[in-house]
Amino acid sequence: MDDNSPPPSKTELVADWEHLSKVFIRPEDDDCRATLIKYMERILFGLHEFLKRHVGITEAKSLRDLSRSYMRTEISEDPEKKLADVITCLINETAPHAVNVASPYFVGHMTSAIPYFMVHLKTIVAALNQNVVKLETSKVFSVVEKQVIAKIHRLIYHMDEAFYAEHVQNTETTLGVFTEGGTTANLTALWVARNARFAPTEEFRGIECEGVPAAFRAHDVDRCVILASRLVHYSLRKSAGILGIGNDNVIPIEVDEHYQMDVNALEETIERFKSRSPNTCILAVVGIAGATETGTVDPLDAIADVCGRHNIHFHVDAAWGGPTMMSREYRYLLQGIEKSDSVTIDGHKQFYMPMSCGMVYFRDPTILDVIAYHAHYVNRRGSVDLGIKSLSGSREANSLILDSALKIMGSKGYALLIDHGIRTAAAFAEEIRQRPDFELVTEPVLNILTYRYCPADIQESLGRKKQEDKCRINNELNKVNRDLQRMQREAGQSFVSRTTLQGDRHCPEDIVVLRAVIMNPMTDMAVLREILDEQENIAARFCTNDLPEA
Amino acid sequence: MDDNSPPPSKTELVADWEHLSKVFIRPEDDDCRATLIKYMERILFGLHEFLKRHVGITEAKSLRDLSRSYMRTEISEDPEKKLADVITCLINETAPHAVNVASPYFVGHMTSAIPYFMVHLKTIVAALNQNVVKLETSKVFSVVEKQVIAKIHRLIYHMDEAFYAEHVQNTETTLGVFTEGGTTANLTALWVARNARFAPTEEFRGIECEGVPAAFRAHDVDRCVILASRLVHYSLRKSAGILGIGNDNVIPIEVDEHYQMDVNALEETIERFKSRSPNTCILAVVGIAGATETGTVDPLDAIADVCGRHNIHFHVDAAWGGPTMMSREYRYLLQGIEKSDSVTIDGHKQFYMPMSCGMVYFRDPTILDVIAYHAHYVNRRGSVDLGIKSLSGSREANSLILDSALKIMGSKGYALLIDHGIRTAAAFAEEIRQRPDFELVTEPVLNILTYRYCPADIQESLGRKKQEDKCRINNELNKVNRDLQRMQREAGQSFVSRTTLQGDRHCPEDIVVLRAVIMNPMTDMAVLREILDEQENIAARFCTNDLPEA
Repeated sequence: MDDNSPPPSKTELVADWEHLSKVFIRPEDDDCRATLIKYMERILFGLHEFLKRHVGITEAKSLRDLSRSYMRTEISEDPEKKLADVITCLINETAPHAVNVASPYFVGHMTSAIPYFMVHLKTIVAALNQNVVKLETSKVFSVVEKQVIAKIHRLIYHMDEAFYAEHVQNTETTLGVFTEGGTTANLTALWVARNARFAPTEEFRGIECEGVPAAFRAHDVDRCVILASRLVHYSLRKSAGILGIGNDNVIPIEVDEHYQMDVNALEETIERFKSRSPNTCILAVVGIAGATETGTVDPLDAIADVCGRHNIHFHVDAAWGGPTMMSREYRYLLQGIEKSDSVTIDGHKQFYMPMSCGMVYFRDPTILDVIAYHAHYVNRRGSVDLGIKSLSGSREANSLILDSALKIMGSKGYALLIDHGIRTAAAFAEEIRQRPDFELVTEPVLNILTYRYCPADIQESLGRKKQEDKCRINNELNKVNRDLQRMQREAGQSFVSRTTLQGDRHCPEDIVVLRAVIMNPMTDMAVLREILDEQENIAARFCTNDLPEA
Repeated sequence: MDDNSPPPSKTELVADWEHLSKVFIRPEDDDCRATLIKYMERILFGLHEFLKRHVGITEAKSLRDLSRSYMRTEISEDPEKKLADVITCLINETAPHAVNVASPYFVGHMTSAIPYFMVHLKTIVAALNQNVVKLETSKVFSVVEKQVIAKIHRLIYHMDEAFYAEHVQNTETTLGVFTEGGTTANLTALWVARNARFAPTEEFRGIECEGVPAAFRAHDVDRCVILASRLVHYSLRKSAGILGIGNDNVIPIEVDEHYQMDVNALEETIERFKSRSPNTCILAVVGIAGATETGTVDPLDAIADVCGRHNIHFHVDAAWGGPTMMSREYRYLLQGIEKSDSVTIDGHKQFYMPMSCGMVYFRDPTILDVIAYHAHYVNRRGSVDLGIKSLSGSREANSLILDSALKIMGSKGYALLIDHGIRTAAAFAEEIRQRPDFELVTEPVLNILTYRYCPADIQESLGRKKQEDKCRINNELNKVNRDLQRMQREAGQSFVSRTTLQGDRHCPEDIVVLRAVIMNPMTDMAVLREILDEQENIAARFCTNDLPEA
């Protein structure tokens, strides 16, 4: 893959018809079969070596140096490499510059090790190459998808047996959709909410047909807003932008000292709009079940009640936290999610599926009718084609992976992972509290926490300072933590991410924090202590001069 | 997977910590490695048997019967199956009810056999599990993606060496984006066009921030339209719906007798809007390079000139036809595409990649700035994160597959496939003309054609009939062709799709046609003759009574 690699041998290259057709024929003889298996072996175990290494976002080769090897922009007319050479090159030259997200020391992002069988399942999806946009290119996998969607719907909404018997394989109704990821899941939820709210009237064909300005006129609305915790994922703002509502109209609701949406503030905001701006439509309220930065969960039950009273679409972004519902011990954290109108859950997050898999669920099995599209060649009226009610057109049969994984793991298997993450994060928080040089900034609710390097004397003195001194001190600490995170990342042994918690009424300054996401079951306290040790060492060696005075 | 399968043995199930952690550890001993390889072998060659069979959208088991096996909606708490059992069940019980899109006899849709190495490449993507939304979870694969995007951009736009040297690895500029598929690629193109057109002014923060109604006011616009051939893919209407423009505002432009956009009609429509509705904004003109139903290509060069004169964003939906640019012999068919502002190309269509992979390219490397989003934890300003300018958030490193495939195939390898499809479609058209019982309805330009069962005497008499008789006859023929296509599909030996060509000024009635897409290199004239023979047999046995009188 690297352009500096030696020229490959040119046998078996495919730019003539004979060789080309071979790559389309399944191998019939034992030699061919053995070769294909050998390639798979190299993929599984060559990459193995890479996956055993540490994190490797190392600067051993800087991005700039790396980029220099990937400058050529002409497509070669003749084949350059055989599959065998491509695989070798990927394993030996490219993968070493990838990021080992599977390392237990990689605790910075919502991407982690996945169970090895996920790779096998993805291979099956690729080999079958079904397209679930329509029955004619997927058949049984459309049926499988409807079943697994009903399973997750049931996990969320607990409707009764009769409800699921009616809807699981009902070709007229839809309980949810697979999407590319959380962003398109959130977009789909708000798209549906928008179209349901600005429905057709006698003289108006609906917002999907006539557009936003006509919808506002028909419904006597002059502004449309979405209310969400100010910790909401940026994809909600992006969705409002795409949908023509405007991302400025995602109104941030303040959080309390636990980083949960302040329900009083929500209620006040709704009342204020209703009294002062009666022509403003409150399209939806978005609650978070696992905030990206802090892992916190909004008070879903209370928010649901507010939305119920005001008849507002309640969407829960549970892209991260959704699978917590499989844990008997911690599912109470998401209480109220069953009262929501729609829920986003990512498959590639805590269902441990490979990229890319999102999902969105709706309580009302008919609400997706408002985004239905038909064509003469596909998605014909009355057909069972899954593409009728979805943002995507063609897409792979990812449902097969989730369905199989649920069978292999059981909800108990997933619960073990969830429980491990939450317990380990709690223990990690305790460890951080014990170490005098660190300050725990946000308590873990699920398996995410934030902290910063801030020696005890400074922590203590911050409590006594005037606001302007606090501000200066925090700014200096922000720089230290930014440097610390960068130096640890560049060392390549472990990876903790950083983010900036925006100032609010509880703490007026922006605070740069280190952020740990504990989802890899191999990440245990021994690993986490090593990570803190390394941070202490880096700070002692490089950051002491930059620290503010206590 | 089928719920009626025998209960699995319960050893090695993963719902306790010891077994669970094993599935996250790469196998260290030879036994484990051998087992994992054995599974892969079963996937590659167990599915092989399925892939060798005929099409199999058979009704041997009806959809209704099939659905009955997939009704259970509770997630089992305990694991139900080991990976080995899941694989066996998928191969023996589920796959037989899938659709064999890899069969040379499956010529109905834009999904086909893929080269076997694509499965290996997809496995690599899954095993690495990189997330290209940001550098910190992908590193080298962000760089690889930028390179392969520049390669395809160059294939389309042929800018000079200096241009690509400047932009290929430039972290400030972007030549294109990977998307889930053609739908999200088209959506991205129109989203970008919308935001570029309704840009910020002194008193307006831009359409993305403030929404469509505010944008209309700020830019003194009262309607926004998109002009496209009436054969345009339904995803363009969907995109206009999502973007708040309204799908009614996708204005269909008539096609000529070759099913190409009538450029005079386009020009007249533009002039009419400009003179009669000066406050209507013509947001974009969409040209098609490979219409879904007919495979036809709009006169891109002439459309580009019209757009240039009127300063309108010109988008080309080359989801299907894009790779034709790699054929020296046929690239002239897409002449003018290099004058477009944006181009959609699907990876999972004629790049023969596995589902799901779309792409969208932009001539102007800075235009994607209008959809940029940032956050504190990802996509920070000035970072090289690919997620800054894209519809998706998290997504897999599909670029690795395209990059490797280009190296393995060379553009010549792809050209062989393209040329085979176009030549075979031409020969198939000739065969249809030779057979008295069939009528060729749309000539193939690329590798798609439509035809219908319509015996010679009826064809001849249609020319002599009055309009109302024609209408009746065509209606009867429509029913015959609908039945014929269904019966062939249900027989399960081969699959040709059907669509309905809408009546227009050339032929006022809707015509139901059979549609063949020739993309599988194993689909040759012998296969196609068999398909016609089968249709003749079915028609002779079941349809003669329904045929209209000549």
